[in-house]
Amino acid sequence: MRSGRWILALDVGGTNMVAALIHEDGGDPVGLRTRSTPADQGPAALADAAVDLLAQVRTVGTSGGIAANQIVGVGVGVPGAVDAVRGIVFLAPNLGWRDVPIRDLLQDRLELPVVVDNDANCAALGEWWTGAGRGSRLLVTATLGTGIGGGIVRDGRVLRGVSGAAGEIGHMVVQVVGGRACSCGSDGCLEAYASGTAIRARAREALADGTPSRIQEIVQGGVERVTAQEVAQAAREGDELALRLIRETASFLGAGLASLVNILNPDRIVLAGGVMQAGDLLLLPVREEVRRRAFEASSEACVIAAAREPETAGVRGAALTFRREVLEGHR
Amino acid sequence: MRSGRWILALDVGGTNMVAALIHEDGGDPVGLRTRSTPADQGPAALADAAVDLLAQVRTVGTSGGIAANQIVGVGVGVPGAVDAVRGIVFLAPNLGWRDVPIRDLLQDRLELPVVVDNDANCAALGEWWTGAGRGSRLLVTATLGTGIGGGIVRDGRVLRGVSGAAGEIGHMVVQVVGGRACSCGSDGCLEAYASGTAIRARAREALADGTPSRIQEIVQGGVERVTAQEVAQAAREGDELALRLIRETASFLGAGLASLVNILNPDRIVLAGGVMQAGDLLLLPVREEVRRRAFEASSEACVIAAAREPETAGVRGAALTFRREVLEGHR
Repeated sequence: MRSGRWILALDVGGTNMVAALIHEDGGDPVGLRTRSTPADQGPAALADAAVDLLAQVRTVGTSGGIAANQIVGVGVGVPGAVDAVRGIVFLAPNLGWRDVPIRDLLQDRLELPVVVDNDANCAALGEWWTGAGRGSRLLVTATLGTGIGGGIVRDGRVLRGVSGAAGEIGHMVVQVVGGRACSCGSDGCLEAYASGTAIRARAREALADGTPSRIQEIVQGGVERVTAQEVAQAAREGDELALRLIRETASFLGAGLASLVNILNPDRIVLAGGVMQAGDLLLLPVREEVRRRAFEASSEACVIAAAREPETAGVRGAALTFRREVLEGHR
Repeated sequence: MRSGRWILALDVGGTNMVAALIHEDGGDPVGLRTRSTPADQGPAALADAAVDLLAQVRTVGTSGGIAANQIVGVGVGVPGAVDAVRGIVFLAPNLGWRDVPIRDLLQDRLELPVVVDNDANCAALGEWWTGAGRGSRLLVTATLGTGIGGGIVRDGRVLRGVSGAAGEIGHMVVQVVGGRACSCGSDGCLEAYASGTAIRARAREALADGTPSRIQEIVQGGVERVTAQEVAQAAREGDELALRLIRETASFLGAGLASLVNILNPDRIVLAGGVMQAGDLLLLPVREEVRRRAFEASSEACVIAAAREPETAGVRGAALTFRREVLEGHR
């Protein structure tokens, strides 16, 4: 097994937790493990579950030849607003948390230094470090899942804004007049059109209107079970409604990304999340829409790509966050 | 007169040119002069006119006690895409320019070192240095004029993006479905709703529909002469159509700024340009709309203010650009 130091990394999602060992110099995650997030049982139960998962990962690592003293600490990404300096999650709606000292909860149980950051920032940093954003000078990432998370990485550093809340690209307004309601309380947000939840909602509306579609056969009549995944599958099978839903999604997503291209002039945009299961059916018209809308110089400077290993971007970025803060002494 | 070095600064607009002497440490512009831009007579004629204007400014300065050898160079802002390193304007639609070596054209005539940058970047930097953006860590500026220009300044440095084209906040898409055509070739851009040109277009449409309004009296029936200025005046006099036009503008502008607040999490947004003559009639509902739409933490962290001396932001920023590049040796 490689010499050098290893970092335990944990990516806490609203649904699942992912954990792995990451070498301080990057490379493939070792001992990757995942489990469901006990989101409704409070911070202590979640910390216990996380510690259990990390113990499994550590066992895989040490059986594989990583010495216990090579494992130097823990990087954690959590889905919420984080005070990274104090290690406190001050708001995580998906977990029902407010002012939870997650760093101390984990540190007390693990007897290793713990560093905490927002999960979208971790994912963006992971894409930049060892993912589809590698080598980019100005990277924007968007994760199109239940909601739309985002991150901006400039010269390898997360652009955090003045109160650590930057990167909320899901909540740019793409439809001022007649915009759909968004979970954030506003309306017309990109998330209300291009998230998995939004695609599902539009699919259900169309099916409820009696629009015939393969989607119904795929979910065997259980319209309430439709997700972006079934829409993607039906679209690949040539279903007209599904293709229309994906075209609409591409139109809004392309407009949102064109705005980001014009505002930030990035050289890379990396897209992840369940919605990306539509693959090129979504990606190609999105690129086309960005090219149509954004300034030529900026559009030509920007590659729009799908994440290659989106499921581990969070742990990879959490590990880099730990490396920087503890091993290098700066963020 | 103050000791230290002085910088001749020139702000070339599509309509007017502004020039002044600026002390290397900031402070009020000296010898401020303005004239119309000979936009359609080619680069050499524009350079001649600029040199003439700068000579007037220099005379005011030297009569006022600034020694000729205290004037160390020239900073210039131009309305277009600029290769700042080579001093070339590679595209300036308002001037009809493509690949114009404006730095050399001026340097040959002036026998002083010249530094060139984009005018919106200069204005943003001027607002940060000695304007309404002073002291901000992350500043966004928007100039609502014929078009909408913008700039982003982080820790006192312009965020340029990978090809120098960042900050085009006028071309974020705020209305995907049914958006108005924009001068950039796209549609639904913020500029197509909240620029002076857009307000004028909407005013004319309403007047052509026969909507009664004070605006017609103000322009004495010459509907084709309506600008954002007359709309602002009529609104201040309580005119219903004018107030509606400003409310609509605020709704789109507020949505666009809310997007920027969510994406970048800035601590200051400074608004300038002719559209801002509407004053609080526009600014108050814009703030309200940002508060309604953006995340609370980000919205509370951000002050939205009108520029105090917008007409000189460009020259102030051009001077700082010169100071950094020539006097300090970095951008």
